[in-house]
Amino acid sequence: TPGSNASFSEDEYYQIIEGVKRTYNQKIRPLEITYNFEGFHSSPLTNSDIEAKPIVLLIGQYSTGKTTFIRYLLDKSYPGEHIGVEPTTDRFVAVMHGAEDRITPGNAAAVNQDLPFRGLNRFGQAFLSRFQVSQTPSPILENMTIIDTPGILAGDKQRVERGYDFTAVVEWYAQRADLILLMFDSHKLDISNEFKNAIHCLRGQEEKVRVVLNKSDMVSQQQLMRVYGAMMWSLGKVVQTPEVMRVYLSSFWTEKPPNSFEDCRELIEAESKDLLRDMKELRRNAAIRKINEIVKRARLARVHALIISHLKKEMPSMFGKKKKQEALLNNLEQEFIKIQQRYHLPAGDFPNPDKFRQNLSLYDMDKFKSLKEDLLDKADEALSVDLPRLMSRFPMMNPELDKS
Amino acid sequence: TPGSNASFSEDEYYQIIEGVKRTYNQKIRPLEITYNFEGFHSSPLTNSDIEAKPIVLLIGQYSTGKTTFIRYLLDKSYPGEHIGVEPTTDRFVAVMHGAEDRITPGNAAAVNQDLPFRGLNRFGQAFLSRFQVSQTPSPILENMTIIDTPGILAGDKQRVERGYDFTAVVEWYAQRADLILLMFDSHKLDISNEFKNAIHCLRGQEEKVRVVLNKSDMVSQQQLMRVYGAMMWSLGKVVQTPEVMRVYLSSFWTEKPPNSFEDCRELIEAESKDLLRDMKELRRNAAIRKINEIVKRARLARVHALIISHLKKEMPSMFGKKKKQEALLNNLEQEFIKIQQRYHLPAGDFPNPDKFRQNLSLYDMDKFKSLKEDLLDKADEALSVDLPRLMSRFPMMNPELDKS
Ligand SMILES: Nc1ncnc2c1ncn2[C@@H]1O[C@H](COP(=O)(O)OP(=O)(O)OP(=O)(O)O)[C@@H](O)[C@H]1O
Ligand SMILES: Nc1ncnc2c1ncn2[C@@H]1O[C@H](COP(=O)(O)OP(=O)(O)OP(=O)(O)O)[C@@H](O)[C@H]1O
Ligand SMILES: [Mg+2]
Ligand SMILES: [Mg+2]
Repeated sequence: TPGSNASFSEDEYYQIIEGVKRTYNQKIRPLEITYNFEGFHSSPLTNSDIEAKPIVLLIGQYSTGKTTFIRYLLDKSYPGEHIGVEPTTDRFVAVMHGAEDRITPGNAAAVNQDLPFRGLNRFGQAFLSRFQVSQTPSPILENMTIIDTPGILAGDKQRVERGYDFTAVVEWYAQRADLILLMFDSHKLDISNEFKNAIHCLRGQEEKVRVVLNKSDMVSQQQLMRVYGAMMWSLGKVVQTPEVMRVYLSSFWTEKPPNSFEDCRELIEAESKDLLRDMKELRRNAAIRKINEIVKRARLARVHALIISHLKKEMPSMFGKKKKQEALLNNLEQEFIKIQQRYHLPAGDFPNPDKFRQNLSLYDMDKFKSLKEDLLDKADEALSVDLPRLMSRFPMMNPELDKS
Repeated sequence: TPGSNASFSEDEYYQIIEGVKRTYNQKIRPLEITYNFEGFHSSPLTNSDIEAKPIVLLIGQYSTGKTTFIRYLLDKSYPGEHIGVEPTTDRFVAVMHGAEDRITPGNAAAVNQDLPFRGLNRFGQAFLSRFQVSQTPSPILENMTIIDTPGILAGDKQRVERGYDFTAVVEWYAQRADLILLMFDSHKLDISNEFKNAIHCLRGQEEKVRVVLNKSDMVSQQQLMRVYGAMMWSLGKVVQTPEVMRVYLSSFWTEKPPNSFEDCRELIEAESKDLLRDMKELRRNAAIRKINEIVKRARLARVHALIISHLKKEMPSMFGKKKKQEALLNNLEQEFIKIQQRYHLPAGDFPNPDKFRQNLSLYDMDKFKSLKEDLLDKADEALSVDLPRLMSRFPMMNPELDKS
């Protein structure tokens, strides 16, 4: 049945993403273009924006098994992968789906329009030389992009030895990630400053964070309880939120280590399964979030079109254009109220008048387009038919659609 | 071998306590009496002070299984015991060893010189009517006194419904306890204000606190991990100390509940064994602590005797006694220095001169006893021979003896 969790298949995901792209491109984008949405809000979405896969960010101290976990997920090495006992991963690696194995160096990746990494340019050359995109064909990467990271080091060491602002880079990824896995090693858990650094990087993103206590089979059950308890104790002290973070007791490896314990095998397997299932959920959540974003955007674009066309209509056809434009600018609040009343729009859907005025002052209102009913009808259809139909594939209610 | 943990037998404990009593009564008490130690420091120890057993304080919300735990330890009910699903234990019960079953009501218990509860009088009638001593013959009670308590209630309820200051009473016991067991129920762990109240009662006593997550077999292993993690998370937020509190995952019952889980049986058994072993250790630690206290007390009594006999010696034999006493009082600091130099005593062993002056002013120095070498020699012998010999039964070094 569509809408139930278990049956949310790959196919369905693609159908939904295709549906979102079609709806946006045919019914919302034209409205945005016609009334210059970009000049007042944001530039039109590209197909790759809509297609962008959920991002999973893996962070933790070195040697906790981050890269090994990715190998486990892919069931193979990604191009340029390094696993070892010393701090090994020496760069940020975006592990992505691709038709064949390919490594794109950081500089090239950060200028590529098809990749969601243009924002990384701000961190400069020292960082870009420590960033790469590794593409490989893999079923799991069809559903998510995984960011492998270098192990977290002690505070100062981090800044001095790396030559770039590690914490700022982690924050950048954390803001864009859909899931942040904070990985610890039960075998050598040390509740140090690094630990705190890791958490501080993630402030404000707590609801996306899950904790993975990896290598749980490298200690006995009683030791594992001690380590797990100590970790929760420290996390409780450091994390500001009262909600307890979800922790998965796991051990991910492709070859079983010779000296592992068996007494928690069942627990570890159940917990690992939970984590993998929650990761699969990501795609579903990402789809819901995407529909939501498009709904928000369509409502905004509709109001924007009504404002712009209203201002155009108010302009005189012959004389006094300049004076009228000034009067409209000064009475923007009144004009907004007129539009609200005419179209029965809630005040909350309107932009901030001062900000809007600032943007408006750069334009000649006379050049604005008048109301095109067909464009508006299409956007209305998107909001009342297409997007709700897409959302109806999920059992949960959609708060954005509820409001309208 | 004497001194090793495992072999610290009952016999040995009694030998040590007997040794401490003998040493104190023969070699330290006479010095205290002769130079009126009581007037300046504290009254002589009685045999029952020295014999007093380690105290285990059990606290937690209602129905966590505190009373059931005591039944488990004794392998029988104590006189006046109540177990049930509602808040059942309605009073503080000191469960102590006795030749036969006997209940002593709070008022009688608080005036009994042989019981360590005279301090409870300060909490008044409302409390005393909710206190009792329950004695019963039981091997485990030969080694410790256990305090059963009513379950902790929500903040205001506690104060209003009980009619006495519950928190203050818990603090009184906590200060005197050798071990505080803070009991939670994995079955219905609720991280509420009560939880915080329980911890706040114990501020400053954290190093004596151990946490017992009881009824651990009433949930599945994965649920137990969640509950345990959530508890540690909350504890970490509430407890100020950075050291992680020791937690025991346990389930104590005398009749196995019908709906219990088996998947953590081994873990729970290992943890319960750890707790019981640590409780056995109590007696050993109590013995060490007692020797330490006597050492401290003997050093203080020795310095006290030297001060008093010095002042006596400085007094004139015939005229000007009053004037001289005043001069000595005013120059007490100088006199202290003289004594330090003559007997090579560290300044840190001396009492606060202002406080001491205040006490002195109540006495006639002429009536003080002069130095009795034999009394002093005996105390020296206690410090250099008897007490170190008793302490040598423990492998650990003794900080107080180290200092001398
Ligand atoms: N589940 C596991 N059990 C036992 N050993 C493991 C496990 N996972 C990884 N290891 C070992 O731990 C070491 C570090 O692994 P890995 O390189 O994957 O860690 P990392 O977190 O990526 O480290 P870095 O931050 O340095 O890149 C390797 O020797 C690896 O084989
Ligand atoms: N380990 C256990 N497993 C399952 N049930 C238990 C366990 N220990 C106690 N119980 C049950 O829990 C209930 C409360 O037990 P008990 O009276 O010992 O708790 P308490 O902490 O002393 O409560 P109160 O604070 O009200 O005196 C009783 O029904 C008892 O049988
Ligand atoms: Mg790595
Ligand atoms: Mg009880």
